[in-house]
Amino acid sequence: MIEVQSYSEGRWTNPDDSAREVRSAIDGRPVARVGARLDMAAALDHARRRGGPALRALTFHDRARMLKAIAVRLNERKETLRGLSFDTGATRSDSAIDIEGGIGTLFVYASKGRREMPDSRVYLDGPVERLGRTGAFVGRHIAVPLEGAAVHINAFNFPVWGMLEKLGPTLLAGVPAIVKPATATAQVAEACARMIVESEILPEGAFQFIAGPVGDLLDGLGGQDAVAFTGSAATAAGIRRTPSILSNATRFTAEQDSLNATILGPDVTGEAPEMDIFLDEVAREMTAKAGQKCTAIRRVIVPGARMDEVAERLSRRLADHPPGDPRDGGTRLGALVNLEQRRDVIGKAEIIGAEARLVFGSADGLDPDGAFLPPMLFRCDDPDAAARVHDTEAFGPVSTLMPCRDMEHAAALANRGGGSLVVSLVTHDPGVAREVALATAAHHGRLYINDRSAASEATGHGAPMPHMVHGGPGRAGGGEELGGVRGVMHYMRRAAVQGSPDMLTAIGGRWVPGAEERAGPAHPFTRRFGELEIGETLRTPPRRVTLEDIEHFAEFTRDTFYAHMDGEAAARNPFFPGRVAHGYLLLSFAAGLFVEPNEGPVLANTGLDGLRFLKPVEPGAAIDVRLTVKAKTPRTPEYGEVRWRVAVFDDAGDAVAEYDLLTMVAV
Amino acid sequence: MIEVQSYSEGRWTNPDDSAREVRSAIDGRPVARVGARLDMAAALDHARRRGGPALRALTFHDRARMLKAIAVRLNERKETLRGLSFDTGATRSDSAIDIEGGIGTLFVYASKGRREMPDSRVYLDGPVERLGRTGAFVGRHIAVPLEGAAVHINAFNFPVWGMLEKLGPTLLAGVPAIVKPATATAQVAEACARMIVESEILPEGAFQFIAGPVGDLLDGLGGQDAVAFTGSAATAAGIRRTPSILSNATRFTAEQDSLNATILGPDVTGEAPEMDIFLDEVAREMTAKAGQKCTAIRRVIVPGARMDEVAERLSRRLADHPPGDPRDGGTRLGALVNLEQRRDVIGKAEIIGAEARLVFGSADGLDPDGAFLPPMLFRCDDPDAAARVHDTEAFGPVSTLMPCRDMEHAAALANRGGGSLVVSLVTHDPGVAREVALATAAHHGRLYINDRSAASEATGHGAPMPHMVHGGPGRAGGGEELGGVRGVMHYMRRAAVQGSPDMLTAIGGRWVPGAEERAGPAHPFTRRFGELEIGETLRTPPRRVTLEDIEHFAEFTRDTFYAHMDGEAAARNPFFPGRVAHGYLLLSFAAGLFVEPNEGPVLANTGLDGLRFLKPVEPGAAIDVRLTVKAKTPRTPEYGEVRWRVAVFDDAGDAVAEYDLLTMVAV
Repeated sequence: MIEVQSYSEGRWTNPDDSAREVRSAIDGRPVARVGARLDMAAALDHARRRGGPALRALTFHDRARMLKAIAVRLNERKETLRGLSFDTGATRSDSAIDIEGGIGTLFVYASKGRREMPDSRVYLDGPVERLGRTGAFVGRHIAVPLEGAAVHINAFNFPVWGMLEKLGPTLLAGVPAIVKPATATAQVAEACARMIVESEILPEGAFQFIAGPVGDLLDGLGGQDAVAFTGSAATAAGIRRTPSILSNATRFTAEQDSLNATILGPDVTGEAPEMDIFLDEVAREMTAKAGQKCTAIRRVIVPGARMDEVAERLSRRLADHPPGDPRDGGTRLGALVNLEQRRDVIGKAEIIGAEARLVFGSADGLDPDGAFLPPMLFRCDDPDAAARVHDTEAFGPVSTLMPCRDMEHAAALANRGGGSLVVSLVTHDPGVAREVALATAAHHGRLYINDRSAASEATGHGAPMPHMVHGGPGRAGGGEELGGVRGVMHYMRRAAVQGSPDMLTAIGGRWVPGAEERAGPAHPFTRRFGELEIGETLRTPPRRVTLEDIEHFAEFTRDTFYAHMDGEAAARNPFFPGRVAHGYLLLSFAAGLFVEPNEGPVLANTGLDGLRFLKPVEPGAAIDVRLTVKAKTPRTPEYGEVRWRVAVFDDAGDAVAEYDLLTMVAV
Repeated sequence: MIEVQSYSEGRWTNPDDSAREVRSAIDGRPVARVGARLDMAAALDHARRRGGPALRALTFHDRARMLKAIAVRLNERKETLRGLSFDTGATRSDSAIDIEGGIGTLFVYASKGRREMPDSRVYLDGPVERLGRTGAFVGRHIAVPLEGAAVHINAFNFPVWGMLEKLGPTLLAGVPAIVKPATATAQVAEACARMIVESEILPEGAFQFIAGPVGDLLDGLGGQDAVAFTGSAATAAGIRRTPSILSNATRFTAEQDSLNATILGPDVTGEAPEMDIFLDEVAREMTAKAGQKCTAIRRVIVPGARMDEVAERLSRRLADHPPGDPRDGGTRLGALVNLEQRRDVIGKAEIIGAEARLVFGSADGLDPDGAFLPPMLFRCDDPDAAARVHDTEAFGPVSTLMPCRDMEHAAALANRGGGSLVVSLVTHDPGVAREVALATAAHHGRLYINDRSAASEATGHGAPMPHMVHGGPGRAGGGEELGGVRGVMHYMRRAAVQGSPDMLTAIGGRWVPGAEERAGPAHPFTRRFGELEIGETLRTPPRRVTLEDIEHFAEFTRDTFYAHMDGEAAARNPFFPGRVAHGYLLLSFAAGLFVEPNEGPVLANTGLDGLRFLKPVEPGAAIDVRLTVKAKTPRTPEYGEVRWRVAVFDDAGDAVAEYDLLTMVAV
């Protein structure tokens, strides 16, 4: 019997007399006790006063490193989590989704934090906007962490992934989390939480874990807090109505009920490789985690002519998935989380059964102690007339097969879910994919398309990837999670900043055109990563571009494009007065002007962004260059990336080309 | 007496016996009647069935052109709107903010739609994400219009701008709007609405205008609808509680009460140019639109040592702003919108007066018929102990001056507004700007910084710019409007799309690496914009890069960087095996390989994006190039922009450089 503790205000608390008992999904024996009366106001205060400031003092890269360290630590201890998961009904492959999936999500956020966010406390969102004629007053958007707490209310089905997929973006944003796991699997979440706390990787107050009811936690929320909820629509609606949330515009995101659908393309014949792909996806989504996935396939939409074949072939596959003890390696369908959940699923299946007939599976003769349930496939031949098959989420191994006339009809049926997390399509025809995507995208958070080309790497209809947003409109809750940095932004406030280029440079930590260009103490290519300062600028002497240079460059590179070689043809062109220099000649001469040739801290030119040619350069004009340190990002212990703004001018003082140059510079 | 009509279901309806009377702000005479019982369900249905499909059939560029045409049309008729505005209390410069500001917002959205969005029905959000090892399965995010209606509930203060700033992003997204103006100034909004309808620029159903109460409109909302509200926090809270909105997760954004602050930097002495800038901003924000701006300065935070000076100099400026008839050209402070509003402001001023003393202005001896009110400046010397000065929004020419000890204290005071739309700072010190920005950004939607460098183009503390987000956390409603394309996204659904590169290419209309590369019928440089197809690819023969080429290029360009010239130094570098070719040499040779030299439809190389050097090229290696049409965007009637994916390979078959090349190509 596990006494599931809570961690708040820096200490662990045992369950008290308010605790509830958790029973094994396998045999119904009591396995854990969950719940204690805790001081929720104190927990919020601890997050806000202790965790928030400590996290905000770190940079995005610091926080990314913490996520990676946690992921490594959990990965070393995953067998402990797996062992605890069996009593939740999860097979080994079910808990791989949960545990390895959760750890993998942390790794992706650690990596994205380092690669896609700056090593600073301010995230820059979008480009500089010029707000006046000369650029004396400009704007840009920044994002900073919310200064409150993030309350995570998680579902029972993925106690580890559900915790980590919210925790990764939250901590990367710099916001302390208060995690409330679902009671039914709280013992698994607690084990993971304990590993996190005992690692001492996070600053105190950054992570609290409240097993059991949250009491008056929500009543204490304000405008700097955020709630991320996963669970039923009914519970979500109750939370949305919380007066504190309504009156403070507390950020609230929900990921709730979802009648996900899959669609079989009209091009997929019985012999096509896509038919097996389709049947595999459906069978897997019905049985993985015993169908207790918010993304599972609830509705299977196939062209009318394929109904019988799909019903028959899918039934055969399902016959290979009898429910069994999740501890047995050969079991592909484990147990539901508990008997209450099974009763709920059977009740929902009866509602669906009023509009559809059962073609596979049965809820008769069930184990009275273990929450086992065979897969149940319904068939609804008139899905236009039906209603409940489109709005009844049986959260178990239950799906309904239904026919469509064409893809427009298939999309309309999929959309009758009233907003879902995912719709999938199996087709090898890009035209079908485009038609279905345009007809469904507004109604589903994710469109998943599989075929013979993608199958080897396709991640599965039901798997939310950290790179992609997870959430859907309407019934699915209207929220969004994950999606790379988008998911981090859910815990940050975007602010529009307006001012002079110098002010925006100081605030964003990235040089803004128009800001001060300071001469450095030496050629910037002789300065190490740590020495270079934002705004440090090299101004080069000019170099004249002659007609001979252009002709020579053309001959050497074999780029004899008419604008460089044929004065009459060039003059007919709307962009050029006559023969002009090659853009690549300008880039090459610019490098010749600003490069310091001797061995030094600059290691390599790794790329170039946003090059624009602004004015043609005619033979005889002279160009000079300004090279400014725009941004610096550490990459390894040995070197960092320096982003330089390069502006090339002609002897009239006009910019002829502008771009960002990327180099690696030794630290 | 204006009978303010509503426009719904394609017809105009007169006010009925439920109508309310609107009185002149100047003299209280009745000027308009507003309100009729309309069939709201039918209006929603009309938007969804007629307006939505018609808008969604258009591309972003089509819709952008419509916005521009509307802006041009309104601009021609703006004197009519200005004439109607005087009776709302607006001076000429007040109605310039409203009318020219609103029209300008449409122009900006028209321009951004053409420049920053594709000429298609699918917006691409972010880069392609590789989800497997080989790139056979990839993801990207798209955005498509919501398939419901956008309900806009507008405030009385800016009947034109308030309508157009919501309408621009909504129509550009492709979503039909149902606009509900505030009753108090509905006659001005109606005149503008009539100009829009009579222009016949928009498809029927794309725009409806409901003057007066909205009845049961909100009860009909679902998961594909959106509500954008501007007004009081109390009204917003009521709307948030609407059962249909809660249960369908209807998108809701609010822009409500805001206790905006301005902060004077510690560097600003009485003689500094920033002192005049500061006093001008405060006086303008207190008096423009008679202080009836959601962004007006309500709290003036200055270093304690400057309190007396600011109080005195600001009072002198305010003395130059007596209220007067808005029709008089010399009037700088018009009237409040009506007597009810003046009573409300006076009531709020009394609340503030309990914690602060009045140092300028008086609510005594007011005109009984015209809603005039002089500016009122309060002074609160203990703002830490005070509460109501931080939460009482007197929506008129009323501000409170308060002292701070330092910028940390100033930020803390500003943040006591509980979330606001804008905080401004006048300083010439970028360090002060950074400190204040980091301490305030989470609490305010916009940070506005002014100084001598920016003043010539600064757009004003109170002016939301279409490029920048408008909205704030907490008390300000938690919503966001505008911000360029961000504002368009509020009316679109983002969907994550996963599949093979071919599927993503078909759906997004932009070639994705890994998708099919088809040979075209001729060299692509001989093909016109309209002929080129996405995915059309040229494969070039190889060219060997010799040591002589590298040495010659170095000599010619003068780029003698050691990695190209000094084998031993290059080998010490972590990136290179020894001497390698210049990146610019590779670019130049690549162009030499793919360029077709003769005069043809390709007009100019205008730029290059996302160049990355992936593998060094040693002397003796051969390179070849694949040039693929990635995206096409019309730019003028004569030519369009073709974005090519360029991949350069070595003779081991490895990519050595990849980039996007931009050209203009004749149609």
